[in-house]
Amino acid sequence: MGDKELDHRKLIPEEKERIEDEIVRFFEREREALMDDERAQTLLDLLQEYTLRGGKRVRAILVVLGYMAVGGKDVRKARRGAVAMELIQDMLLIHDDMMDQGPVRRGGPSFHRMYEELHRKEGLRGDPEAFGRNMAIIAGDLAESYGERALLDCGLPKERVQDALGIQVEMVRDTGYGQLLDLYSEVKEGWTEEDVMKVHRYKTARYTIEAPLLIGAALSGPPDVRARALSEFGLPVGTAFQIIDDIIGLYGDPAREDDKSKLSDLAEGKRTLLIIKALECCDEEERDLILSALGDSSVTEEKAEQVRQIVRRTGSLEYSRERAEHLTRQGIKALDHPGLDPKVVSLLKGIARELVGRADRSGDYLKPHAVP
Amino acid sequence: MGDKELDHRKLIPEEKERIEDEIVRFFEREREALMDDERAQTLLDLLQEYTLRGGKRVRAILVVLGYMAVGGKDVRKARRGAVAMELIQDMLLIHDDMMDQGPVRRGGPSFHRMYEELHRKEGLRGDPEAFGRNMAIIAGDLAESYGERALLDCGLPKERVQDALGIQVEMVRDTGYGQLLDLYSEVKEGWTEEDVMKVHRYKTARYTIEAPLLIGAALSGPPDVRARALSEFGLPVGTAFQIIDDIIGLYGDPAREDDKSKLSDLAEGKRTLLIIKALECCDEEERDLILSALGDSSVTEEKAEQVRQIVRRTGSLEYSRERAEHLTRQGIKALDHPGLDPKVVSLLKGIARELVGRADRSGDYLKPHAVP
Repeated sequence: MGDKELDHRKLIPEEKERIEDEIVRFFEREREALMDDERAQTLLDLLQEYTLRGGKRVRAILVVLGYMAVGGKDVRKARRGAVAMELIQDMLLIHDDMMDQGPVRRGGPSFHRMYEELHRKEGLRGDPEAFGRNMAIIAGDLAESYGERALLDCGLPKERVQDALGIQVEMVRDTGYGQLLDLYSEVKEGWTEEDVMKVHRYKTARYTIEAPLLIGAALSGPPDVRARALSEFGLPVGTAFQIIDDIIGLYGDPAREDDKSKLSDLAEGKRTLLIIKALECCDEEERDLILSALGDSSVTEEKAEQVRQIVRRTGSLEYSRERAEHLTRQGIKALDHPGLDPKVVSLLKGIARELVGRADRSGDYLKPHAVP
Repeated sequence: MGDKELDHRKLIPEEKERIEDEIVRFFEREREALMDDERAQTLLDLLQEYTLRGGKRVRAILVVLGYMAVGGKDVRKARRGAVAMELIQDMLLIHDDMMDQGPVRRGGPSFHRMYEELHRKEGLRGDPEAFGRNMAIIAGDLAESYGERALLDCGLPKERVQDALGIQVEMVRDTGYGQLLDLYSEVKEGWTEEDVMKVHRYKTARYTIEAPLLIGAALSGPPDVRARALSEFGLPVGTAFQIIDDIIGLYGDPAREDDKSKLSDLAEGKRTLLIIKALECCDEEERDLILSALGDSSVTEEKAEQVRQIVRRTGSLEYSRERAEHLTRQGIKALDHPGLDPKVVSLLKGIARELVGRADRSGDYLKPHAVP
């Protein structure tokens, strides 16, 4: 590895740790600023545990990398601002789990479940489930306000912070549009490939890759051509990330079998690119089988396996995979911009390859491909 | 009425209309900025109708008055920023109604009910109620991001906008803490007067009066002693407002019988100052009666009437009323600050007297009092 390349496998765990230190500091400051009330303190304690419990901090790391990519020097302050992404992520996960009634998150109870347990443990009056749900709505709303607070207080120049906040607000809005479309996908007939790609773009690509990089870049200086290059990297790679995630969601990831159920995407009735393309190319009988599995909360592994075989046979799996690889290549190419820091570019390329490479470990349905 | 006094009864309806024009413009801009998707357009249409359907625009008007009170001259731009308060209010009401499963808001269906109806009308798949609830979570989150967008785009200097946004973010956070405490009030034994006053302070006083005034002032210039005077007006008057609201919530407002049920506060189990004080002073039998009415979703008018009589007999009603009047007087006095625009001061005093005067119309339990 040359002097101009950094190993993302080494740098990223280090950066992750520094971000987690900043998360702890953020909660310490919030606790001090807080009215002296133990019930509100409890919420902060639970939210801190929830935030630190798991997660790869990809979005926060990308804020820091976006900042460094365009030459930002005050990395400590950018990192303080990057904590915002983890808090916004809390908001989305807490509200999402409440919508799906998901019981588990990051290897522990989901947030509404944490308050349900607290209700039972403290022997409070009324319905524990309603209490958990209502607390989750409030906690999510609070987490969003914490996300803005973290960015507002990062200590970088006001003009920079305001530009970054503008991007963050747009990102939250677009993620909301993506979620809205996603809800329709569960209830509306005639879902198309265009719809799927729109959801990916809004719900994942902007939110997971593009916006964090742009927020980081905005913390360093006003938008210029380099921000555009980051955007042209982030959107396709983010879309590829979601496509791969959907492959793993159906075929599983042997490395983390416990983390991601191979049945939950089907049980939730998710209209993924895999499913849409398979429905386009399968026969009547197969179509009925897929539709009967979609949204069936007690779908069996046997039926799921039949769906997997149809998705494979119709070429839909290969189509998704090739699309993800093409998008990743396209994104990686956009990074070849002379104004971007070459060390950071090399890191981002490594991250992109890693993201798409996850599918190589997904079941034995897929043979490894190399992404340049 | 002297030259230095403006009639709030005339100015406020005019200002309300101008703010509503700005709300329409805000939604027009959002529609243009929006991805070309009819489902997202539908959400904006529904949210615009919901926002404009009712409401007194008190908070947005207070932003404008806060701006003018400290000498702000570009009122049009401040008004554009003030729209944020109405959007944040949307977020809180949408999520609140979802938590309580409230069917009605501002004389029409609550937001989750609007999407429930849409689900039925369009013959979508799945459970209409779940669809309505999930859409309400997303729409509330979107409304919060719109609230930030409105302030970010108001066109006033960046430094001013950032200060104002910092106050708005704190306000959303504190309202969240207030809601959190309020949820505990429904499930925890031993609720105290101190708890009640804390909820009032966080959930209502900051949010309804103090923060809007401070946001307006911050849009004009950096914080100074005048902001402190506005704060010393807003917190007590806002607390008084909530106490009066709770009186109306139990005894009713004959002028608007349709708008506010005299039973819903009891049915929801709200621990108001009225209830807490009555519980402190009543006998065992009365105590059992109050506790059996609280949180009983099918509480009868007859039982409610018994609770009203206990609250009156124990002196709790008079205690609440006197406390509200004292707080209002205290707030009004804080406005006598030479740096504040005297016309605006006179208007704010008029608004405060109006707010507390609402109780004079509440049932025949109360004789009119004059607030200086």
